[in-house]
Amino acid sequence: MDRRHAVNVEPSIELEEVSAGRARARMRVTKEMTNLHGIAHGGWIFLLADSAFAHACNGYGPPAVAHSAQVTFLRPAAVDDELVAEAVEVSRYGRSGVYDVNIVRQNGDLIAVFRGNSMTVTKPS
Amino acid sequence: MDRRHAVNVEPSIELEEVSAGRARARMRVTKEMTNLHGIAHGGWIFLLADSAFAHACNGYGPPAVAHSAQVTFLRPAAVDDELVAEAVEVSRYGRSGVYDVNIVRQNGDLIAVFRGNSMTVTKPS
Amino acid sequence: MDRRHAVNVEPSIELEEVSAGRARARMRVTKEMTNLHGIAHGGWIFLLADSAFAHACNGYGPPAVAHSAQVTFLRPAAVDDELVAEAVEVSRYGRSGVYDVNIVRQNGDLIAVFRGNSMTVTKPS
Amino acid sequence: MDRRHAVNVEPSIELEEVSAGRARARMRVTKEMTNLHGIAHGGWIFLLADSAFAHACNGYGPPAVAHSAQVTFLRPAAVDDELVAEAVEVSRYGRSGVYDVNIVRQNGDLIAVFRGNSMTVTKPS
Repeated sequence: MDRRHAVNVEPSIELEEVSAGRARARMRVTKEMTNLHGIAHGGWIFLLADSAFAHACNGYGPPAVAHSAQVTFLRPAAVDDELVAEAVEVSRYGRSGVYDVNIVRQNGDLIAVFRGNSMTVTKPS
Repeated sequence: MDRRHAVNVEPSIELEEVSAGRARARMRVTKEMTNLHGIAHGGWIFLLADSAFAHACNGYGPPAVAHSAQVTFLRPAAVDDELVAEAVEVSRYGRSGVYDVNIVRQNGDLIAVFRGNSMTVTKPS
Repeated sequence: MDRRHAVNVEPSIELEEVSAGRARARMRVTKEMTNLHGIAHGGWIFLLADSAFAHACNGYGPPAVAHSAQVTFLRPAAVDDELVAEAVEVSRYGRSGVYDVNIVRQNGDLIAVFRGNSMTVTKPS
Repeated sequence: MDRRHAVNVEPSIELEEVSAGRARARMRVTKEMTNLHGIAHGGWIFLLADSAFAHACNGYGPPAVAHSAQVTFLRPAAVDDELVAEAVEVSRYGRSGVYDVNIVRQNGDLIAVFRGNSMTVTKPS
């Protein structure tokens, strides 16, 4: 089997606020992000959360990168849902950081929860 | 602080192969997917893996959705890297499925590993 | 190679408080739980967190079981550390629940963070 | 509310084989590991998997510790089930390692899948 198709979506993720250990990002669900059931693919929700996470863990001096992340999808998001991802620092110790990102829609429903582990980048020695 | 910016990327994810419990998808890293260090944001790598996962777990009869997923980023991916995500079924039992997705680049380097939990959709009773 | 050894530990996990969506459990780190470096194996910390999680998600009517869980280890725990795991509900929707468990020691240091996904048990139909 | 109880279990985890990047451990489910439904708590299954993981990632020179882990429970394990956890290396790069541990019982059923991230320990510089 060889089904070919291309995903052509131009997500517009708007970063609303960034401070040390915190960030908030926003994205509207478009038709291209959904499957046949009209439900947004989890990958787009992750992308939004990851964007907030990346800014939250880079609000400090040393640059940090994502080491790993886990996401749980709680409710389906539909076309035109306005999703907001709010990232907050849970812990920083040594080079490691943990950040929680909750993704909610306009009516306050919790759509997904994301937890990201960051690692500060060190120069090769 | 209120830094606004928009992410405008049009990822082209090409689905190469789908069968029951398996799928392979491909994506080229573009400049827009990277940060200042020229490294692809993890969100795009997750999106590619999630796409392969979604097709692999829907190769069977009953429709399935993503319940949760975990990803670990192993090596940085750079602009023009050609990433291939290969999803394979690990287990199906009852309504639950587990799928592993390895993401490699053109030279065979393992870039990230993704594990997704799926849940078949049931009609309300 | 065939190195045999047995782990013989008798952990004493004390359940301190249980209510709908919340639970707190306590465990003292013993010598048997540690490796050669005197640091507690993560498995014991997970066991403590899982215990609090199990009670928190069963504080409601329908019995629930663990579907999956993720843990990040932040600081090493040493012999005689008194660990407290506090589980709180993050979300319940349909049959799915998400619970966060923070594990701290006597001086307030955050040792690990745990996130558990539960699923209520349904009778076969 | 203040329900007190103590968990007093003496798990016997037997390490059967260790080599660089691989380890196998075994544990019999006892009555004390189960809940009222006769199903083993996930915490014990994680403990077994973590034990195999710890030995697999320490089969190399530099000592490594667990950074984080994720587990998905697939089938219930019952009293007297003989569980075997087989850990294999998925990747090592820089200080980071990823190990998969499959937990099966005597009849070959896959009970749970575990993925652990390790980090080699460096001396403070």
